[in-house]
Amino acid sequence: MDLVAGIDIGGTKTKLGLVNNLGECVVGLNFRTKEYPDLDQYLDKTVQSVHELVEQVPSKVNLLGVGIGAPNASNKRGTIEYAPNLYWKGIVPLQEKLQKRLNLPMRVTNDANAAALGEMLFGNAKEMKDFVVITLGTGLGSGIVSNGSMVYGYDGFAGEFGHFALLPEDGRLDGLGVRGGLEAYVSATGLKRTILYLMSKYTDESRFRSIAFNDLHGEDITQAAEEGDIIAKKAFEYTGKILGKALANFALFSQPEAYFLVGGLANCGKWIFEPTKKHMEAHLLEMYRGKVRILPSGMAEKNIAVSGAAALIWMDQQAASY
Amino acid sequence: MDLVAGIDIGGTKTKLGLVNNLGECVVGLNFRTKEYPDLDQYLDKTVQSVHELVEQVPSKVNLLGVGIGAPNASNKRGTIEYAPNLYWKGIVPLQEKLQKRLNLPMRVTNDANAAALGEMLFGNAKEMKDFVVITLGTGLGSGIVSNGSMVYGYDGFAGEFGHFALLPEDGRLDGLGVRGGLEAYVSATGLKRTILYLMSKYTDESRFRSIAFNDLHGEDITQAAEEGDIIAKKAFEYTGKILGKALANFALFSQPEAYFLVGGLANCGKWIFEPTKKHMEAHLLEMYRGKVRILPSGMAEKNIAVSGAAALIWMDQQAASY
Repeated sequence: MDLVAGIDIGGTKTKLGLVNNLGECVVGLNFRTKEYPDLDQYLDKTVQSVHELVEQVPSKVNLLGVGIGAPNASNKRGTIEYAPNLYWKGIVPLQEKLQKRLNLPMRVTNDANAAALGEMLFGNAKEMKDFVVITLGTGLGSGIVSNGSMVYGYDGFAGEFGHFALLPEDGRLDGLGVRGGLEAYVSATGLKRTILYLMSKYTDESRFRSIAFNDLHGEDITQAAEEGDIIAKKAFEYTGKILGKALANFALFSQPEAYFLVGGLANCGKWIFEPTKKHMEAHLLEMYRGKVRILPSGMAEKNIAVSGAAALIWMDQQAASY
Repeated sequence: MDLVAGIDIGGTKTKLGLVNNLGECVVGLNFRTKEYPDLDQYLDKTVQSVHELVEQVPSKVNLLGVGIGAPNASNKRGTIEYAPNLYWKGIVPLQEKLQKRLNLPMRVTNDANAAALGEMLFGNAKEMKDFVVITLGTGLGSGIVSNGSMVYGYDGFAGEFGHFALLPEDGRLDGLGVRGGLEAYVSATGLKRTILYLMSKYTDESRFRSIAFNDLHGEDITQAAEEGDIIAKKAFEYTGKILGKALANFALFSQPEAYFLVGGLANCGKWIFEPTKKHMEAHLLEMYRGKVRILPSGMAEKNIAVSGAAALIWMDQQAASY
């Protein structure tokens, strides 16, 4: 059975899976990234996990390669560079070190690029050549596909919409210190910050006045909006307005046929999709109006991060078979 | 002699030339676009001009095709759509109509994309795969090349940085009605508007206090800066600050190795390059810092618009010969 190992390296969790050519994760496991502050120990654990997964598959596994999605990862150099949410600092020669342990075809890219490739191979972008995947988790990531190819950039760091300074100079600081950076507003964390901001600005009663910031979770905000909490509803409108306007502006770059919103905040469904669509449409240039869609992922159930990472290798397989 | 006809359709002038495989325009002519408000008459004039040029070449010409750069042009549909600076309104089926008159391979794209292809084939981007050309004329155009391919977008309208709403909501209106649109600040026209703005803001003496807006020209502003006019110097600093910050932000899209500044405003040399570089570097994310260059065109003498348009066809020839 031909399978690809997909690995999603997150600040909190590392997710692994063996993925077939339909993007299905046939076996998988997670472990806590933070338990392995030493890179070599982390890589040993990773390799051991891949072997465990192979043994869990009843039929004989032909492992075609390893695809890895990680924050601040460069496909050109196989490195992770200055990732603020990981223990390993500076430039981490991930691929080189892992290749010594696992002699298999290997590809590395950032997690949002992996999600975009996953969407193209296995999800809702199968028929598309120009689209952008926006991942809305702790931060905001983006993977841009133009004419069927990933936009990687000069050394692999293209597609970092989260740090676009869209807001005025007195805006919020984002995770990389960008003043007014988009992800400080549009992300799971950004939504929580917006709850604080709106409670500072308005006097509406809200359940969030009795909940500390650190105890606040995205799902609670959706739930509160469903139940009519005015601050929660305003927070989604505020977030969708900023995202919608940003997506209208970003259309000037690659003119995508669609934006896919994926990840935590996208799971808030209509609360985020509706204001985003409304404000994007209102700000699009006439020549783009009515031509840019905002869509959910087609991979919700399939663990987009792991399948997306595996898509890095499946893509090569497809190309080789032509 | 193998040649390609390059046509640059501008709001004021149409430039034509026959271009060899080095990007050299061996013969050329201009006529006034505005004298032909009727599209059919315009196209007849264009075809007649191509024939005239062919006859001017002493040796026998083998015309390989026609490449056209025009504002708001779609490579996918061969159309010009809603170009604010042209007489022909709505959707103009340029390629279809011209093809009936000249049965040759034909390609159409916007003028900034043509400039980018010209820079890649014949200019300073020969060794590059990821770069962006910024044209600074009446407006601001952009042509993005990613991994050696033009970013055209879903229906050919990618790369419109000029209408990016970078500035706050009370910003200047640009030519397409975008509030705070980049080209309202960074273009030959934008620089003139900045002169007015700075004279409204400061009380410095300036030669421009005795010149009406309509009599003001970009070259005069360079000259004034050279001679120490404070308003002129401040205007370049102001423009370079906005452009530099914008280019730092745009690096988040395609992570180019270089930006090329071409066209009228770029001819102001150090007055525009120096503040732009300084402010771009100050605003770049750490992972891009020191890796993005701002360069002049390598085609200054070669009529970049016409050679760039011709590059559309020469590119196909190169691809076919592999």
